[in-house]
Amino acid sequence: MDISSFITSLLTSFIIFVALVLVFTWLSRRPGNAPVYYPSVLLRGLDPWEGRRRGTRSPVGWIREALSASESDVVAAGGVDAAVYLVFLSTVLSILVFSGIVLLPVLLPVAGTDHALERSAGFDKGKTANNFSDIERLALGNVQDKSKRLWAFLLSVYWVSFVTYFVLWKSYKHVSNLRAAARSTPDIKPEEFAVLVRDIPKPPPDETIKDSVDSYFRALHPNTFYRSLVVTDHTKADKIYQEIEDNKRKLARAEVVYANSKTESRPEGTKPTHKTGFLGLIGKKVDTIEYCSEQIKELLPKLEAEQKITLREKQQRAAIVFFNSRSAAASASQTLHAQVFDKWTVMEAPEPREIIWPNLSRNIYERQIRQTVIYSIVFLTVFFYMVPITAVSAVTTLENLREKLPFLKVVVDQKIVKTVLQAYLPQLALIVFLALLPSLLLFLSKTEGIPSQSHVVRAASGKYFYFIVFNVFIGYTIGTTLFKSLTTLINNPPQIVQMLGNNLPGGATFFLTFVALKFFVGYGLELSRLVPLIIFHLKKKYLCKTEDEVRAAWAPGDLGYNTRVPNDMLIATVVMCYSVIAPLIIPFGVVYFALGWLIAKNQVLRVYVPSYESNGRMWPHMHTRIIAALLVYQTTMIGVIPLKKFIYAPVLVPLIPISFIFAYITQMRFYPSFTKTPLEVAQHQLKETPNMEAIYSAYIPPCLKPDKLEDLDVFEDAQSHTTSRAPSI
Amino acid sequence: MDISSFITSLLTSFIIFVALVLVFTWLSRRPGNAPVYYPSVLLRGLDPWEGRRRGTRSPVGWIREALSASESDVVAAGGVDAAVYLVFLSTVLSILVFSGIVLLPVLLPVAGTDHALERSAGFDKGKTANNFSDIERLALGNVQDKSKRLWAFLLSVYWVSFVTYFVLWKSYKHVSNLRAAARSTPDIKPEEFAVLVRDIPKPPPDETIKDSVDSYFRALHPNTFYRSLVVTDHTKADKIYQEIEDNKRKLARAEVVYANSKTESRPEGTKPTHKTGFLGLIGKKVDTIEYCSEQIKELLPKLEAEQKITLREKQQRAAIVFFNSRSAAASASQTLHAQVFDKWTVMEAPEPREIIWPNLSRNIYERQIRQTVIYSIVFLTVFFYMVPITAVSAVTTLENLREKLPFLKVVVDQKIVKTVLQAYLPQLALIVFLALLPSLLLFLSKTEGIPSQSHVVRAASGKYFYFIVFNVFIGYTIGTTLFKSLTTLINNPPQIVQMLGNNLPGGATFFLTFVALKFFVGYGLELSRLVPLIIFHLKKKYLCKTEDEVRAAWAPGDLGYNTRVPNDMLIATVVMCYSVIAPLIIPFGVVYFALGWLIAKNQVLRVYVPSYESNGRMWPHMHTRIIAALLVYQTTMIGVIPLKKFIYAPVLVPLIPISFIFAYITQMRFYPSFTKTPLEVAQHQLKETPNMEAIYSAYIPPCLKPDKLEDLDVFEDAQSHTTSRAPSI
Repeated sequence: MDISSFITSLLTSFIIFVALVLVFTWLSRRPGNAPVYYPSVLLRGLDPWEGRRRGTRSPVGWIREALSASESDVVAAGGVDAAVYLVFLSTVLSILVFSGIVLLPVLLPVAGTDHALERSAGFDKGKTANNFSDIERLALGNVQDKSKRLWAFLLSVYWVSFVTYFVLWKSYKHVSNLRAAARSTPDIKPEEFAVLVRDIPKPPPDETIKDSVDSYFRALHPNTFYRSLVVTDHTKADKIYQEIEDNKRKLARAEVVYANSKTESRPEGTKPTHKTGFLGLIGKKVDTIEYCSEQIKELLPKLEAEQKITLREKQQRAAIVFFNSRSAAASASQTLHAQVFDKWTVMEAPEPREIIWPNLSRNIYERQIRQTVIYSIVFLTVFFYMVPITAVSAVTTLENLREKLPFLKVVVDQKIVKTVLQAYLPQLALIVFLALLPSLLLFLSKTEGIPSQSHVVRAASGKYFYFIVFNVFIGYTIGTTLFKSLTTLINNPPQIVQMLGNNLPGGATFFLTFVALKFFVGYGLELSRLVPLIIFHLKKKYLCKTEDEVRAAWAPGDLGYNTRVPNDMLIATVVMCYSVIAPLIIPFGVVYFALGWLIAKNQVLRVYVPSYESNGRMWPHMHTRIIAALLVYQTTMIGVIPLKKFIYAPVLVPLIPISFIFAYITQMRFYPSFTKTPLEVAQHQLKETPNMEAIYSAYIPPCLKPDKLEDLDVFEDAQSHTTSRAPSI
Repeated sequence: MDISSFITSLLTSFIIFVALVLVFTWLSRRPGNAPVYYPSVLLRGLDPWEGRRRGTRSPVGWIREALSASESDVVAAGGVDAAVYLVFLSTVLSILVFSGIVLLPVLLPVAGTDHALERSAGFDKGKTANNFSDIERLALGNVQDKSKRLWAFLLSVYWVSFVTYFVLWKSYKHVSNLRAAARSTPDIKPEEFAVLVRDIPKPPPDETIKDSVDSYFRALHPNTFYRSLVVTDHTKADKIYQEIEDNKRKLARAEVVYANSKTESRPEGTKPTHKTGFLGLIGKKVDTIEYCSEQIKELLPKLEAEQKITLREKQQRAAIVFFNSRSAAASASQTLHAQVFDKWTVMEAPEPREIIWPNLSRNIYERQIRQTVIYSIVFLTVFFYMVPITAVSAVTTLENLREKLPFLKVVVDQKIVKTVLQAYLPQLALIVFLALLPSLLLFLSKTEGIPSQSHVVRAASGKYFYFIVFNVFIGYTIGTTLFKSLTTLINNPPQIVQMLGNNLPGGATFFLTFVALKFFVGYGLELSRLVPLIIFHLKKKYLCKTEDEVRAAWAPGDLGYNTRVPNDMLIATVVMCYSVIAPLIIPFGVVYFALGWLIAKNQVLRVYVPSYESNGRMWPHMHTRIIAALLVYQTTMIGVIPLKKFIYAPVLVPLIPISFIFAYITQMRFYPSFTKTPLEVAQHQLKETPNMEAIYSAYIPPCLKPDKLEDLDVFEDAQSHTTSRAPSI
């Protein structure tokens, strides 16, 4: 890529970005757009305009606001997870800034004043020196072989590595404290009083699972056990419950429509009707209000009956056990209960809102098998994802399509359409695949048997990380298919160093453009929220009738860590790997993460609403992956420097064990408190005596929840055999 | 090795064995030898002859007795560890018996009726068919290439593998139950109420470590915390204490000597005297009784002063914390206490008798570094142990010795002596090294920073296992030095299969003799206890004066798992690996483990006294190593069968992943309860209310122990600053 097209692409992206920011500034000031630009603020019951008059008047008001917001504001608005995501962005930013401060003033002059490129051009008479862009001139490629200038590059690798260690240590400590603080607040959180119990052994025939859980935990924790909630297979009850809710919504909508139809001219109005068949298109026409009320009346006793059956007969071999203090629950969740590990396994309970009920009752062997199978599938996907896509495109050639779907003939037979389609069909398949990949990975992670949504997101994020780092980064730079590289690797492991060293320097300009495009266009779209804005206004105008429906139309969703974090990690990996080879990439990386941090902070404060709170459980994964990026970088440099015939290159080798030791020490020191709750933290005072009944009922799925809190005992009794309860009374 | 020399060596060993058994039968019946043959029985306060008249009269009485003893007898006599060792022997025995039942009747005829050896001899005219011993004829070597008979060998590998899985699963289950039973007895064991706390952070200047431990644990376990015992550096106090004990012993001895010297002819007797200098050889001559009494009188106040200083000023950053119930201690030992893992780390407390005090206060980083260094040393020892030995023998050549130690000249200059010495000096160095190795490994393991003796023994046992399996088994069969093989391996990993396959079959006869020698001579010596017998009688006659001294002379020691288990594992590995190549080795293995089991049971019941009780903590290591042996075996067979040009050989490959899956599942299921105490087990009722003061004082080192139990509070107060204790009262 020559310099002019590089600058053109850069400028284009920049103009798009500026345009989108202006659009954002203009649109976000209009009150009618508040649900799109301030949903999180609205949901917390605040007025988005209050106290911000100044901010909203100036176009950089949102920047000032984002900068001035403290970490506790972020925690209050988006939870610890969002705060940790910001720490992640600022961590990478600090690494890049610290690296840049030394690398730019040192390496650019050192490279720029050398003449390797001109020389080699001199040998190759066809080229003139002008052919080399400034980018290439300011990179490692311009330094002559065996030159003493290479020491500067070599020591830069050390500088970047130690900066990374230092910043990562600080950040891990910070996040660890953040987590400890979040977990020791005096607020009462139901999940801190509960423990998830799985692999419950089959109870004797005269006992229900509920009975056996109760007697087991009452015996082992006589002073601290409060109650247990056995997981049930409530799919059927839930279906009925959803039907009722659906009818209630329809009823509300119909009533609004009916009320609106009562104009002055026709005070009696029109009663809304609908057809009962498929999608309301076919079937008998009925009066909606009457029909829905009847449906609800019919369904309610059904639900009640199903609830009883579910509670009594559909108990699963998993339970949530409640304790009367936080430290009792923390301690119980870390203690081995049974002599064999495949019975009565305990772990910390997830938050009620993020539990994946069907996964709770899978036993330990099933979980292991599922995990192995999923991992194999992901491994195959990462390495061979081109195979099914090629196969799909082969099957869906135009000829096939014509035969299978004759109605397409008219379109397909046109010559231009045909050429375009033939050229783009494989790419289309690829694009569709890449668009569906995150959802596929989420689905796969869910299938593993993971009990909570946040854990599923973490698992999917890891899988996506491997996919994009391998395929975008390594795939592009090495230039061959990953599979081919893999077979070479197995036969000769040390070749990876050589392979990376040979191929990486060539990609510098490509990745410069890639990073710039990512942040200008990506962040512009993110900030301006054009797509949600259009969807919201369309829905509001044409579809929504009730308040609830409008509310649903602007429901903001959460940050979507499962794609966000791996994408940022890809940029971090790319920038790190090129930091010494082509230091010019560092400013681009700095802009990416600085803008990213700013915009993410704005979005956290105003837009997104967390759908769970894992108290920064994502951090260890981010930490490990930054170290993984560092290792890729160090390996690359060990491969790149010797290409310059520099005999001191092995000086870099100790960095690899140092990175491993650093990773080991940090994980040893900080990681345990991310998987377990330390007693120190659980022991903190609560602000009031916990209302155990409220805690207990927080975990009852909505479709089983009794109408009044006083019915909790009835709810519980429904689950035991009276025979076995008798002695315990 | 031809057949006649094989039989000769077998016969010789057998005769030695029979002779030693006869000697044992004869000697063990003489009451004067009871302390040598029945020390364990005597120490438990039983009469070795009671109820055994019948047993001792017949020469096979001990066998009958060993066979009839139940597992609970073994546990009562030698603890769970001894019972688990017997389970280990019987496990290997069952594997071999089950394998032999199928392999011997099938493989021997299949191999014996083929003619590969004669054929290849036919080509090589110099040999006649008679040159092949029956051993070689009955092995895999006699089967022709590509023969269908190879299916029998191939399926045998599957049979042995599945027999191993089955037996191992049964045994692990059995040991797990054994451990659970031992840990849930109603007896009160101090270690079940205690938790070892390490990495205590530096307390504020106005607090002692004791104060900070107390306040920390009282806050986190308000209802269950009992007391804490801070580890002190009591080396100096211990030195004084030992001096006092030494003087007490001398005094007792002198008094007995004095009393004995009062014959009828000289009723006043002779007062014993000794010299105060080096080894009693030089210095002033003193009256022993007077001198020792004075010494004790002088030392006692010194000890008291030192005790006070130790308790107050030599507190280390480790402590033993006591809880008022077993389940509270079990739960506390498994719970994360601090937000960062390198502070307040907790683990189950070792038994008081096996604590290695100086290791307790090493911090987590020091432990890690020590472990890494020790592992590297052991790795180098396993692979390069020949290097220092060669170096030592090079330095200690005869010429050097002559120059350094001129007084040896007379001996060394003799021609025969010279020749012999020159030939054997390297071997001598090797023998000395091998004899010292177990102690060296114990020392190294202790240096790692492990807190308990039993854990040190396990660690040393693992190291010794690697050493002997690599050097004796693989070293012998592959024939080259291990280092050379290692370099080949690194360059081409799949070669290990080929290498094992090529070299293993050659060693069959050697290992047959090796196993036979091991059990006949080794077990003969073990059973007859000739060496302890001679030492005991010599000491009793010439050295011992007091009852205590006699008692010390026959102190039996424990089983010495650190060398015993690896040696048995070597035999198990050898027999397993040859089981299909040369099935004749199976009966030898069966005899080895059957005799081993019988003799070990006898020795456990009558001789050895356990010096610690780890409740079968050794088992997971034994289990893993049997699987390791199985994997070596399977790998070997995958290498051996294709040498016969048998195309179905790859049928064996799935065995390797199956073994790994089996290992994973068994460890997942059973291992956790070997590292942690399950609540189920800790919750069992005790037979009486525990005497917490007795439990507490069990952990006080003898040199610091107050004379009366009532002084415990004084002992405790000595450790805190009154300033900080004041508010807690």
